[in-house]
Amino acid sequence: MSKLLEEFQEYLKKMNQYEHVLTLLYWDMKTCTPKLGQEGHVEALTHFSTEVFAMSTSEQMGEMLTELAKPAEYDALTDTWKFIVTRMKRDFDRNKRIPADLYKTYVQTQAEAGNIWVDAKEKSDFSLFAPYLQKMIDLTVEMAGYTDPGVEVYDALLNQYEEGMDSATIDGLFEALKKDLIPFVKEILAKQKPENPAFKGYFDPDGQRKVQDLLLDYIGFRRDAGSVGETEHPFTLNFCSKDVRLTNHYYENNPLSSIFSAVHEGGHAIFEQNINPEYDNTVAGSCDYMGLHESQSRFYENILGRNKNFWLPIYDKLGELLPAFKEIPLETFYQEINHVQNSFIRVNADEVTYCFHIILRYEMEKAIFRDHVPVGDLPTLWNQKMQDYLQITPADDAQGILQDMHWSDGGFGYFPSYLLGSIYDGMLLDTLQEELGNVDELLKNGKIKDITAWLNQKIHWYGNTRKPKDAIKAVCGKEISAEPLIRYFKEKYSEIYDIQI
Amino acid sequence: MSKLLEEFQEYLKKMNQYEHVLTLLYWDMKTCTPKLGQEGHVEALTHFSTEVFAMSTSEQMGEMLTELAKPAEYDALTDTWKFIVTRMKRDFDRNKRIPADLYKTYVQTQAEAGNIWVDAKEKSDFSLFAPYLQKMIDLTVEMAGYTDPGVEVYDALLNQYEEGMDSATIDGLFEALKKDLIPFVKEILAKQKPENPAFKGYFDPDGQRKVQDLLLDYIGFRRDAGSVGETEHPFTLNFCSKDVRLTNHYYENNPLSSIFSAVHEGGHAIFEQNINPEYDNTVAGSCDYMGLHESQSRFYENILGRNKNFWLPIYDKLGELLPAFKEIPLETFYQEINHVQNSFIRVNADEVTYCFHIILRYEMEKAIFRDHVPVGDLPTLWNQKMQDYLQITPADDAQGILQDMHWSDGGFGYFPSYLLGSIYDGMLLDTLQEELGNVDELLKNGKIKDITAWLNQKIHWYGNTRKPKDAIKAVCGKEISAEPLIRYFKEKYSEIYDIQI
Repeated sequence: MSKLLEEFQEYLKKMNQYEHVLTLLYWDMKTCTPKLGQEGHVEALTHFSTEVFAMSTSEQMGEMLTELAKPAEYDALTDTWKFIVTRMKRDFDRNKRIPADLYKTYVQTQAEAGNIWVDAKEKSDFSLFAPYLQKMIDLTVEMAGYTDPGVEVYDALLNQYEEGMDSATIDGLFEALKKDLIPFVKEILAKQKPENPAFKGYFDPDGQRKVQDLLLDYIGFRRDAGSVGETEHPFTLNFCSKDVRLTNHYYENNPLSSIFSAVHEGGHAIFEQNINPEYDNTVAGSCDYMGLHESQSRFYENILGRNKNFWLPIYDKLGELLPAFKEIPLETFYQEINHVQNSFIRVNADEVTYCFHIILRYEMEKAIFRDHVPVGDLPTLWNQKMQDYLQITPADDAQGILQDMHWSDGGFGYFPSYLLGSIYDGMLLDTLQEELGNVDELLKNGKIKDITAWLNQKIHWYGNTRKPKDAIKAVCGKEISAEPLIRYFKEKYSEIYDIQI
Repeated sequence: MSKLLEEFQEYLKKMNQYEHVLTLLYWDMKTCTPKLGQEGHVEALTHFSTEVFAMSTSEQMGEMLTELAKPAEYDALTDTWKFIVTRMKRDFDRNKRIPADLYKTYVQTQAEAGNIWVDAKEKSDFSLFAPYLQKMIDLTVEMAGYTDPGVEVYDALLNQYEEGMDSATIDGLFEALKKDLIPFVKEILAKQKPENPAFKGYFDPDGQRKVQDLLLDYIGFRRDAGSVGETEHPFTLNFCSKDVRLTNHYYENNPLSSIFSAVHEGGHAIFEQNINPEYDNTVAGSCDYMGLHESQSRFYENILGRNKNFWLPIYDKLGELLPAFKEIPLETFYQEINHVQNSFIRVNADEVTYCFHIILRYEMEKAIFRDHVPVGDLPTLWNQKMQDYLQITPADDAQGILQDMHWSDGGFGYFPSYLLGSIYDGMLLDTLQEELGNVDELLKNGKIKDITAWLNQKIHWYGNTRKPKDAIKAVCGKEISAEPLIRYFKEKYSEIYDIQI
């Protein structure tokens, strides 16, 4: 190993200590920190973010990356370190352009906006959140001006979450979905069955926690390399492949929420736990492509979790842990978890109308960054789009524009990832069935861990080293298309709703 | 404010960020970190401990403290900053003498020994733990040689946990207890009632968690400034008065363990939550005197929690949360929580024989540090002392010498604090009754928060700024004596066991 590479690795090791505690501070603020303790954590978060930023944009870092990128050093690197140097050089050049003060303000505002959002959602009062949303938007635009000069802001944001993706491509994919799904959902709703009241009773949160444990073990979440917490909005984070954490929220009158969040976040976590451990604590050892990440969480949640055969081997155990399920036949459960309905809350939506929730948010974000719609007008625009796509109007902001934490965190451009993930899933399902056989049979026979092993090998192992387009091309042999997802929806729901296709 | 003081405060602020994440890493390792993730946390812990150590022993720190301690600066300081400078100067002079490598090894070994202890206890195999115990003993002796040169090692350790305390004083207090309690316990055991099987059934851990929440709210633990976790061995830690955390462990067949741990740790936590907030994030803003700290946890656990009247206002609620309690009358419960019995596990012992558990450990520690008894002989010595004081022999190491985590953490000299705490409690109870009235009446009328307010004002508010001896003298107007505790035991238990005194 060259002396320079050694020096570089030492430097990264120190920086990693700061990043490690940043992850931990974030985790703790969301899961354990009492209200009055948030302030101390925000202070520490600000301090260490600033340190990491300083280290990641230092002259020393710049010099090391410049030298390592030259053939004399670069050609001798392993493939892994070639990736790390290239990626870090790109990010260095990008971050170097951000003024330190701006970055500090951004991180501080992010934490404040997160706290205010919780409060505003509780009080269902968008006006409390609006000034912080405005700040996050302004800061996002300002940051993008530095990170991606000359690139249209929203395209820059999309590309930050899903490298190689732009609004022209997404427009094409989403328009195809709209074209087929809008009439198809109308056909479904024409055959709508009455809502099942069995799922509105009381489901003990302690029992829900146990069901979550069962599901996580079942799909292959490893407890020796992972743990679970409780938060307002479920999420997954990772220190490295050996320590991956997820959270959930348990609603007394909505057991399906925590059940499907568990499987969804479990999918994210299984991805991170199964990345090549050689990449641990480097930029290769995580997956930053949000669409590709969502493809895994949504594969578990929807493609597998909403398949009747997923439940066959474990449905009895559900009744043992949550006795109310004893009264519900599996067929009723299956109908309920695939009950298509125009509803308000994205995370509770069925997988078909979910597409519209994302398309709505995608169009909201284009309105914010491209059409400069004022923040004060956003609730109205939100509600209008809810009418256009779902023919319903939220009763209040908590049920509408305040439901998601993403914007409080500055995550503009993230939402489309969810639907890109489903689009990839349609393609992955086709390939999986070609290679492993019929998915219904696999699930029926309790072979879900074979599926997990296939995904580990085909997708997870590579972490950041393969971009989404390349990953899908490598696994499926095709360019990205919404056709397999549309076909999956039509086949599945025409059977459930007895529709001729 | 002088320029020097300003500079000093800036320096402390930065150091506090490192201390903040050290506390957090420790908390997370005990409550959330999965097995494979421990390694990454230990690495970060080592890194930041080393940084804190470097800052706290730096030349700059030495120069600032030296200057601030001179009359020109010192006389202009507030009382709080006079305390901070004096205390930090003492600690600086002490720590300065510790070689950096030794300190690093100590912290690393501490973390390793903690993990090994969990494993050894699980497997009930002292031989797994022995080499790490030996390392911790050796490192403790080596450290004491630097921190307290010329002081006898065990006296130095005692003084580190309870400033102003030494083994001569403790010998006096403990011998007085032995003299009165050994015959008194024999009288009690002669009137022993049969054990009550009602408490050996199944008590749902989820219900126990809810009982804990009830108790913590009842005694005045503030949720906006505190949170709760789950660990092998209960403990309390604090970031500052605004963020104080405690843990518990729930045994399915032993509800009294989690109930009294909750009240015990709640007492520690209430202490830390009610220290003058002006002291936050300084050496004044916590209580490092372990005996004084234990006096508060044990006041809640024993003096209040084992009083029948404590339960009168809330006993019905216990039955609602843990239905098994509906079948147990309060009088039966009261008898059980004061059931005197020679038993193996310190944390489950009644408050009377508990004294012997501590005296045993105190004598073990004197044997280790004064008589240099080899580590391999310690289990035998432990078991022999169990026979001497409690007339029983542990079946295995888990039930014997491996039961407590303290030694794995290097906490030699800590154990006597528990009993010193009870000795202070006897005195505090006398004074509280003189000033607030009969404690039975206060509890019966649900006025426990009046007691909490009294303790807040008399003890908690001062944090580190008043040493234990001074605190007890200021509140009780007397020197430390075991007489009030002995009198409390005799009055209470002669009534329960119908003994003539």
